[in-house]
Amino acid sequence: MNHQSKAFIHNDFLLLNKTARHLYHEYASRQPILDFHCHLPVKDIADDRRFNNLAEIWLEGDHYKWRAMRANGVPERYCMGDASPYDKFMAWARTVPYTLRNPLYHWTHLELKRYFDIDDLLDETTGPAIWDRTSAALQHDQLTAHGILRRFDVKAVCTSDDPTDSLEEHKKIARSGLATKVYPTFRPDKALQTADVPAFNAWVDRLGASANVEIARLDDYLEALRQRHGHFHANGCRLSDHGLNYCYATFATENEAHSTFAKLRSGHSVSDSEADHFGGYMMLFFGRLDAKKGWTKQLHLGAYRNVNLTMLQSHGRDTGFDSIGDWRHAERLGAYLGHLEHEGSLPKMILYNVNPSDNYVFATMIGNFQDGTVPGKIQFGSGWWFLDQKEAMEWQLNALSNTGLLSRFIGMATDSRSFMSYPRHEYFRRVLCNLIGADVENGLLPDNEGLIARLITDLCFTNAADYFALPLGKVDKSMLAPLTKD
Amino acid sequence: MNHQSKAFIHNDFLLLNKTARHLYHEYASRQPILDFHCHLPVKDIADDRRFNNLAEIWLEGDHYKWRAMRANGVPERYCMGDASPYDKFMAWARTVPYTLRNPLYHWTHLELKRYFDIDDLLDETTGPAIWDRTSAALQHDQLTAHGILRRFDVKAVCTSDDPTDSLEEHKKIARSGLATKVYPTFRPDKALQTADVPAFNAWVDRLGASANVEIARLDDYLEALRQRHGHFHANGCRLSDHGLNYCYATFATENEAHSTFAKLRSGHSVSDSEADHFGGYMMLFFGRLDAKKGWTKQLHLGAYRNVNLTMLQSHGRDTGFDSIGDWRHAERLGAYLGHLEHEGSLPKMILYNVNPSDNYVFATMIGNFQDGTVPGKIQFGSGWWFLDQKEAMEWQLNALSNTGLLSRFIGMATDSRSFMSYPRHEYFRRVLCNLIGADVENGLLPDNEGLIARLITDLCFTNAADYFALPLGKVDKSMLAPLTKD
Amino acid sequence: MNHQSKAFIHNDFLLLNKTARHLYHEYASRQPILDFHCHLPVKDIADDRRFNNLAEIWLEGDHYKWRAMRANGVPERYCMGDASPYDKFMAWARTVPYTLRNPLYHWTHLELKRYFDIDDLLDETTGPAIWDRTSAALQHDQLTAHGILRRFDVKAVCTSDDPTDSLEEHKKIARSGLATKVYPTFRPDKALQTADVPAFNAWVDRLGASANVEIARLDDYLEALRQRHGHFHANGCRLSDHGLNYCYATFATENEAHSTFAKLRSGHSVSDSEADHFGGYMMLFFGRLDAKKGWTKQLHLGAYRNVNLTMLQSHGRDTGFDSIGDWRHAERLGAYLGHLEHEGSLPKMILYNVNPSDNYVFATMIGNFQDGTVPGKIQFGSGWWFLDQKEAMEWQLNALSNTGLLSRFIGMATDSRSFMSYPRHEYFRRVLCNLIGADVENGLLPDNEGLIARLITDLCFTNAADYFALPLGKVDKSMLAPLTKD
Repeated sequence: MNHQSKAFIHNDFLLLNKTARHLYHEYASRQPILDFHCHLPVKDIADDRRFNNLAEIWLEGDHYKWRAMRANGVPERYCMGDASPYDKFMAWARTVPYTLRNPLYHWTHLELKRYFDIDDLLDETTGPAIWDRTSAALQHDQLTAHGILRRFDVKAVCTSDDPTDSLEEHKKIARSGLATKVYPTFRPDKALQTADVPAFNAWVDRLGASANVEIARLDDYLEALRQRHGHFHANGCRLSDHGLNYCYATFATENEAHSTFAKLRSGHSVSDSEADHFGGYMMLFFGRLDAKKGWTKQLHLGAYRNVNLTMLQSHGRDTGFDSIGDWRHAERLGAYLGHLEHEGSLPKMILYNVNPSDNYVFATMIGNFQDGTVPGKIQFGSGWWFLDQKEAMEWQLNALSNTGLLSRFIGMATDSRSFMSYPRHEYFRRVLCNLIGADVENGLLPDNEGLIARLITDLCFTNAADYFALPLGKVDKSMLAPLTKD
Repeated sequence: MNHQSKAFIHNDFLLLNKTARHLYHEYASRQPILDFHCHLPVKDIADDRRFNNLAEIWLEGDHYKWRAMRANGVPERYCMGDASPYDKFMAWARTVPYTLRNPLYHWTHLELKRYFDIDDLLDETTGPAIWDRTSAALQHDQLTAHGILRRFDVKAVCTSDDPTDSLEEHKKIARSGLATKVYPTFRPDKALQTADVPAFNAWVDRLGASANVEIARLDDYLEALRQRHGHFHANGCRLSDHGLNYCYATFATENEAHSTFAKLRSGHSVSDSEADHFGGYMMLFFGRLDAKKGWTKQLHLGAYRNVNLTMLQSHGRDTGFDSIGDWRHAERLGAYLGHLEHEGSLPKMILYNVNPSDNYVFATMIGNFQDGTVPGKIQFGSGWWFLDQKEAMEWQLNALSNTGLLSRFIGMATDSRSFMSYPRHEYFRRVLCNLIGADVENGLLPDNEGLIARLITDLCFTNAADYFALPLGKVDKSMLAPLTKD
Repeated sequence: MNHQSKAFIHNDFLLLNKTARHLYHEYASRQPILDFHCHLPVKDIADDRRFNNLAEIWLEGDHYKWRAMRANGVPERYCMGDASPYDKFMAWARTVPYTLRNPLYHWTHLELKRYFDIDDLLDETTGPAIWDRTSAALQHDQLTAHGILRRFDVKAVCTSDDPTDSLEEHKKIARSGLATKVYPTFRPDKALQTADVPAFNAWVDRLGASANVEIARLDDYLEALRQRHGHFHANGCRLSDHGLNYCYATFATENEAHSTFAKLRSGHSVSDSEADHFGGYMMLFFGRLDAKKGWTKQLHLGAYRNVNLTMLQSHGRDTGFDSIGDWRHAERLGAYLGHLEHEGSLPKMILYNVNPSDNYVFATMIGNFQDGTVPGKIQFGSGWWFLDQKEAMEWQLNALSNTGLLSRFIGMATDSRSFMSYPRHEYFRRVLCNLIGADVENGLLPDNEGLIARLITDLCFTNAADYFALPLGKVDKSMLAPLTKD
């Protein structure tokens, strides 16, 4: 072993066999990015935001990093508290050596390399120089929001948006001439969160205002949602998304749904079972909207959110206190997809799973609803959240391979809040090429370049482009900075 | 990488280390096959069926392939519809390149190699020539039903049969002089499927007719089943089998069972709980029958069947719309096995699991009921259905190894509806030898040929032969075509 | 392959790469042992027990071995019956070759090597000579209870003790001058086992006697437990432990708890829901006690115990009839930890999981309650029981790595009833070094000796020493026999 580290992130990082290196450098690395699911702040794109330092672009909203710092014994003021940006950065720098074997360790150094060409391992001693160097680099046009999208050859970005969003920022971006297409995604989670009645009604009011519909009865509600869905469609939206503990599997009748909605609108709380049936009713409604318009519906299932009540109350949602749930999904998925299928309203769908123990349930569930109309119509989405790391990416790829058609997989979703996360596609592609390359060298796949190269390019870009059929941006290739030196 | 593929299925396919190759070629490949669980059509054996083409022998009943085609965007008429056999075959040929990393890709080419000595990779371009070549080859005696059983040195086949089956085909086979012994398996699933009352009663009537018993009361029902069990026994049957979502864990009293049966016989439906208790009552009854006769009971647990209602209604069961369930099994298995054990009626038993997340529950459950009478009395069955592939076979082997006695495992079950599936034993053996060989080379197992060779041959054949103690066929070795050229 | 086995347990056993060998021999093997969780009989330590033969030290209480023998078809009299020690040993010797790939095979030979320098593989032929040789060796002072603790450089042992235990044996050990510190662990499982009312009341009476408190009402009960907790504290105890199917998640109010306790004390049974709420109430009480005193609470969750009723009745608990449960843990853990956290009473905690399918639920759950006060305050414990083997250790290490901070892990728990089990730490360390070494060689971790060596020593000893902050024994290094020859 060495006492000085050589470059940790090198050209063949994660590529442990010759075929993997060939596949990655010849095929995978040359594919553009179709970022069909992320949480980038639209305003930052619209404003072509320029970041002052790593604290802003790295630590402002990244609950993964806050969570790691807390586990490392770092006081809250350096996470979401009032410490200075520099002090927060240094608290993170001190934590990094303790993240060995966590994806944060790989991401951190991959990002330092790809955005700043930094080879140093981040820690307390290298932190100050890295702060200075990156703060300076972030002032260049190559590292503004637009610069980054260009640099990573991002053909399209699909953001996550509330139905009440005016989409003004999206329109501004569309007018800006940015080569990357930026589309909204319709994410109506609040439309079925009825536990907090005042919050629900406030949202319904906002929805009414955005749709210019007075919402008294359920029909008004559905009409307003239908209008917003249409408005999103007019602005290029072709995907919806839902974050649920588990799929709704019981569905209110029309009468029941009307009565539940009326109760809510009059300020009364509803029973768990009423809420559950109402949620099911709404999810069928959203399924039909998507099917009718040819959209793709995404379901993010299984995350157990806001487990720490104290921190939820003091710090809010998405602050690093979520984990993995162990709800049963099979029959619920069967009920929801089966209901839509039976009435002829099953849209293209991507099921994202966050508990690796459920991979085989998800991977085999999709096979029950492939109807021969669209290759891979129902998708088992890439490793999500806690599973967005090498081992779990491999699990998802293997589960899908062993029980379905990997060849029809639409590949990696960025799913990040940060402009620093585009190397996650590179990461996925390296993992993919490493896995496929090993199979070829072990004789588990034919040593046939045409066959294998098609598989790689399909999973990096082509399948997603075909599946979503979104108009894509034409990035001027001559402006692309090389991501790696090969 | 190469642009032309060399032989994909070669002598050392899946054997990635030197010890594995030695173990496979010296020991595993030389073992005969004891096919103790399959779904081969008995009539095809009795008639020594000759197949016209690959569409007949490959696509007639294989819902794995239909399912893959649908996921690949192939319209239904090429799956179970009215397209011509050739067109269906070509639709499959076009799908094959999209099954990379699915077991279908390996099976397809292993079967082409072992039955037809074909090395070409099947796809749209090679399909027509492969169709012609295989259609001709299938006319040879080596590839009739009997020819295949001989060719693969199958000492015995246990089919899956309804208690109402007359077993006339089995008797015909027994008289035919076929070297392979063909035994029925008692599979009384319909005896506890009470949800569809008319279907249940129709089956009870058929049962009564087959046993020559007028079935009015529960006692008649049990007597008829006991008679059929005896009839199966007289025809060589020594195994029973049950396909259940999960093990019944609550058991009707005698009174309750009588009353539930009476209600059913009078055409009334019963409550979920009555049906559940009745199922438990019947499963205890079947357990006692098997224990008394020294049979082995098989439980196939955890498959979530007929998820797509539309396709169930139009295409029926076993058509490719089943997946993996996520029911909880531990306490249910404990209740059923524990009940039988406590009353001294626990037969030898094989538990098959279809959800890999439950492997450790199953692998440790069997240990609670090993009573020192028969080595490996309670078995954790080999990877089933979606788990009948390399990775999941390894999981099952590893789970059993780490928590129980791999050395007492009875090994691979074919579990197929097709005469083309015998190479699955070769596949399992290659996976097994590869795993064990790697352990030896890594020093995890002693490098001791006697010890390791015994393990291999025990798991390929000897343990199953000892465990079931079925009379086996004496195949004339001189008639055996070599399966591989070594 | 060889027909004679060379030394199976050699210096580089399990160390499959160069970096692993370097890490193990330079760092891991040199660390002392902090045995913070085991089930060693305290009296054997107090008496410095000298064992007569392998049957005594190996087979007297080891339900793993009994279980393996039963699965191998060995009659009960050679397990827990009246066969002679020698005959029992030989029954085990005959079983050993059938345990290939089970951890018992590795442990058996590692123990023969480390305690007796025996290289032979144990089986029927080598058994008699091994019996003679080990019986003689066990008479040496190096292999008494104290000799073994010295030999393996055990700085501290935390036993498992009932709150009613006088701790006289612990006091005797403390006075004995044994270099190894021996601390009790507070394990009040019986305090919430209310199903058997007479057994519960008998235990409450013993508790009252031990605390010199007359226990009539709940307040008395809590006071007695508080006193015993204090008594344990005064005797060096800093850990508690609970064995539960799953975490209690509903909590009786004060009134409800008083009423349930009164009902129990008056000899009446309570409902499942009363028992459940009472259990939750008590677990909160115990949590507060531990938090106040700065102890660490251990939860052993998920084992499905005493599945075989017949054997429970005839042979009692912990006799080899336990397996893995499949209860849902996420929300229950969230409720219990969340409740304690919200009231500011969350102690340091170690969650042990026995179902590998729940690894990610546990590994991510701990992240919800890291509060920045103590690095790794909430721990995901090392592979427990059925998971205390190479593959499952790797799974635990990987799950923790991928979703949390491996660097803060406190490492291996012996968790054994036998003085022969200290090589399990060596086993864990070899597995750990092998895993980390492979990562370094594959470029997944930086090839930086300082960074990696710290990770290794932290996980072998330093993290546990820092986390528990127990006074540790000062073993005279010059008295240590080398465990391996390097």
